[in-house]
Amino acid sequence: MAQALEVLGDWWTLLLVREAFMGARRFADFEANLDISKNILSARLEHLVAHGVLARVDAGVHGTRYEYELTPMGKDLATVMTALRQWGDRWIYGKGREPLLALDRRSGQRIPRLRILDDEGRPLAGCDIVLAPGPGATKRTRDRFGAI
Amino acid sequence: MAQALEVLGDWWTLLLVREAFMGARRFADFEANLDISKNILSARLEHLVAHGVLARVDAGVHGTRYEYELTPMGKDLATVMTALRQWGDRWIYGKGREPLLALDRRSGQRIPRLRILDDEGRPLAGCDIVLAPGPGATKRTRDRFGAI
Repeated sequence: MAQALEVLGDWWTLLLVREAFMGARRFADFEANLDISKNILSARLEHLVAHGVLARVDAGVHGTRYEYELTPMGKDLATVMTALRQWGDRWIYGKGREPLLALDRRSGQRIPRLRILDDEGRPLAGCDIVLAPGPGATKRTRDRFGAI
Repeated sequence: MAQALEVLGDWWTLLLVREAFMGARRFADFEANLDISKNILSARLEHLVAHGVLARVDAGVHGTRYEYELTPMGKDLATVMTALRQWGDRWIYGKGREPLLALDRRSGQRIPRLRILDDEGRPLAGCDIVLAPGPGATKRTRDRFGAI
């Protein structure tokens, strides 16, 4: 998880990813919707390009040379963003005060709450989730958890 | 989502939450497993307590006065953390190099991939997810999306 955080740079970087999901492509699109200086925006876009979350594509239109596109790695952040938005809606804004809703385009209905499910599709209780060292665990992680 | 990011402070704060999920309760528990100075650790724990993610409980044991416990708001971050860990496993570490696995305690099996599902439990494609202003949208959000 620490590595994932490293790639994402800082939380605010996720707001750039959200803008890209909402259709931002040009530098000016990102700039218009984020209260952020050109320098910082530029550095964060570069960071996301360098780590493969966004791709810079040659556009040659709109008077700019480049546009930014979500890569498959970037698009796959939809789950992280949905989990984070739903958590904020539940605990920070509260029911009836959600600033932004994610809807199913086909039905117009709100996307159901994201849940951790077991193999058979039943919601998994937090106390039934345990962490264990994986095949790529560091020595420190293995030591911490004991023998694999 | 910006508000959720504000509460979480910065990404690294999520590592404290993970430690709490893994059983850290005392200041020394957090300190032992995070490469972080006492001052910064203390400030981040305070931040999470102030925002309701952790609760400080009087312990009176272990030679310390306080311990930290996840609140229901904090426990509900399990979904965000799982989404983030799984994303990192897919795109940063890759199959067979996962440092840490989340397992179903009852079966010992890995927790299935978290997916955005529709009302009927079918995976929802990214292109079928649209964002729209919610009941708590700011004027800026409403203007951006047009009439609700």
